[in-house]
Amino acid sequence: DPDASVDFAEAEEFLRMCYGDNSKLGSVEPRLAVVRAQIAATGTYVHTPDELAYGARVAWRNSSRCIGRLYWRSLVVLDRRRARTPEEIFALIVRHLCMAGGTAAANREPGAIRPVISVFPQAQPGRPYARIWNEQLIRYAGYRDVNGGVTGDPRAVRFTESMRDLGWRGKGDAFDVLPVAIETPAHGVRLFELPERAVLEVPLVHPEYAWFAELGLRWHAVPAISNMRLTIGGVHYPLAPFNGWYMGTEIGARNLADPDRYNMVPVVAKMMGLDTSKPRTLWRDRALVELNRAVLWSFERVGVKITDHHTESDRFLAHIGNEAKAGREVPADWSWIVPPMSGGATGVFHRYYRESDERPNFYLDADARA
Amino acid sequence: DPDASVDFAEAEEFLRMCYGDNSKLGSVEPRLAVVRAQIAATGTYVHTPDELAYGARVAWRNSSRCIGRLYWRSLVVLDRRRARTPEEIFALIVRHLCMAGGTAAANREPGAIRPVISVFPQAQPGRPYARIWNEQLIRYAGYRDVNGGVTGDPRAVRFTESMRDLGWRGKGDAFDVLPVAIETPAHGVRLFELPERAVLEVPLVHPEYAWFAELGLRWHAVPAISNMRLTIGGVHYPLAPFNGWYMGTEIGARNLADPDRYNMVPVVAKMMGLDTSKPRTLWRDRALVELNRAVLWSFERVGVKITDHHTESDRFLAHIGNEAKAGREVPADWSWIVPPMSGGATGVFHRYYRESDERPNFYLDADARA
Ligand code: HEM
Ligand code: HEM
Repeated sequence: DPDASVDFAEAEEFLRMCYGDNSKLGSVEPRLAVVRAQIAATGTYVHTPDELAYGARVAWRNSSRCIGRLYWRSLVVLDRRRARTPEEIFALIVRHLCMAGGTAAANREPGAIRPVISVFPQAQPGRPYARIWNEQLIRYAGYRDVNGGVTGDPRAVRFTESMRDLGWRGKGDAFDVLPVAIETPAHGVRLFELPERAVLEVPLVHPEYAWFAELGLRWHAVPAISNMRLTIGGVHYPLAPFNGWYMGTEIGARNLADPDRYNMVPVVAKMMGLDTSKPRTLWRDRALVELNRAVLWSFERVGVKITDHHTESDRFLAHIGNEAKAGREVPADWSWIVPPMSGGATGVFHRYYRESDERPNFYLDADARA
Repeated sequence: DPDASVDFAEAEEFLRMCYGDNSKLGSVEPRLAVVRAQIAATGTYVHTPDELAYGARVAWRNSSRCIGRLYWRSLVVLDRRRARTPEEIFALIVRHLCMAGGTAAANREPGAIRPVISVFPQAQPGRPYARIWNEQLIRYAGYRDVNGGVTGDPRAVRFTESMRDLGWRGKGDAFDVLPVAIETPAHGVRLFELPERAVLEVPLVHPEYAWFAELGLRWHAVPAISNMRLTIGGVHYPLAPFNGWYMGTEIGARNLADPDRYNMVPVVAKMMGLDTSKPRTLWRDRALVELNRAVLWSFERVGVKITDHHTESDRFLAHIGNEAKAGREVPADWSWIVPPMSGGATGVFHRYYRESDERPNFYLDADARA
């Protein structure tokens, strides 16, 4: 409950773990005394930058649906707790995306994706807080047409309509980047158009099928979830967008493939000339593989970092090994960890996991889901 | 606990459900009185043939790992509770396989697979009982060679060794059907060789790749699980082998594909000439699809009933709809229901299930697992 005053026990548990794991931070006891007093006086407390960075990394480590956790220590944590106005927040969102996509500095390569989190002001008990309405910082609009069909991403239809109600006008194309809707207690909701340099995109081609390029498919390079609440030691950060790099199947086996998303499998199958008269020709399976080959190949071709589900499965098993050596069990949700294609062909399929809810962590609140 | 006396409450719950669903059986009250007296006198009770058939069908309906439950009412229940000697049991196992495979009668077609269960004597509290050591009635042997490699099914290596210790000699080929090991309290364990007519098999060919036939792959037509205990109304049937027809992925995406089974994916990929230098060419995924096409195509070609994972996913969702109309929720285990390939391309992927343990049901005991 983000309205309640911080539970000191939760703060203490986190701080003991944090100072236990980071001997350079010194003794935890004086810090605990300060935090206890802060909570008594204000209902909450303020993390030091070290605590924040450690907490965000451990929140990633505890994300039981994430297969990409091997590199949890490498998360870049941007402390944005002083941002207040929508303009400030938006400028820092743009900085986040440029840094994540490698388009921020002259000495970095566009496409050298880095895992980044931007942590905006924490919630104050009982007070309204800033948030972003978008589910991801970069997503494509979906427009329902008169025949009931959808141009763009069907998942975004409702969100796109609310953007229109707020005055946004999209081009009406299949891959229109949505505006970022930032709501603050003082300014209400404001829409911002992402600049081109913040939105690295990859046009999709296939290593063998020349016709594939003509489908006009593309996808953005940086998956940045913006509707989850980060919780560290009892403190809630309702606005803390984070990104990794893509695993190909997220694009090729879900976003572009799901029947209630871009639904490209039948189109690809038709172009491949497959016999779609009955399911047992496995035309869906064949088209799905080619769609996914196109995704991985296209990203690689233009030098944008992406991973495949076989590699990521091996890495996740390596992560489990590392964690075991550190005396920790990896909480994991089988149905999210096992990739949505060729499940049985990946190592992560052939075992069970414990699905425990460890803190710090990321949470999707009911109102963010809406 | 199969040693304990039957819990009357469990018997009553089952009988009320059974008589409630089958009005032709009349009132349950007199039956309950009889059962209560039987349990008091003997520690257990005896099902009528109607109760047995209904209980076995509902056990299938309650099998939360089974995607094939749409046809639960059609299960053929063979009452084999009078069989005592290993010879009797084996003869009835052969009858089961012939009936299941459509090779039993002149007027049926070989390959017209039917779901069948043979129910052998129930366990008597505290007394030893007959069982079959095999995990399935038909499985292939696995032989470890001097280099540590395996000919045949690696999963069967330990079982094959124990068969050898008991005097069995296999041909040493990749697809040697194992003997059936039947243990009874009075006769110890005895091995029986299945006759040819009980073992319908399908040689695997590919609809396009002529070289596929030369891999010499084959698989049996009837998957008949023989190590699970059937529990109905507190009564345990430790020997109750049952079969359905295959879903292609069980053979093409697990038995022939898993690295610790026949591990054919790299072989097929090599024959296809795929670039296996890195995982992101998705050579595993492509070879896996072709292996599965071969399975489905080969069975269809020779008229042996088999289903594909797309069709079976749709049927399972239909089953959920039927059950909802009957006021029942379908217990299901996501990680078993979602097929091991193209998971996201099937409807069953895109929802959650309740994983409850309803009775009657099938259970895998620890000693059967060994
Ligand atoms: C570095 C590369 C990364 C890869 C390859 C990766 C991979 C994935 C994948 C494949 C999923 C499942 C997505 C889906 O099926 O919708 C996922 C979920 C998730 N990941 Fe990661 N991830 C990465 C980085 C991160 C980072 C940096 C964080 C947080 C700091 C994170 C936190 C999460 C969370 C919270 C979820 C669950 C999202 C939800 O519930 O919708 N991941 N990840
Ligand atoms: C009629 C066609 C049938 C189909 C297509 C079918 C399909 C399946 C599949 C694909 C699995 C998962 C197997 C695995 O991944 O190892 C399964 C498991 C199971 N099925 Fe069915 N099934 C059928 C009939 C039956 C029947 C007749 C019964 C019992 C009377 C049954 C009971 C079960 C049980 C108990 C399991 C779990 C086995 C375990 O825990 O290892 N099924 N089924």
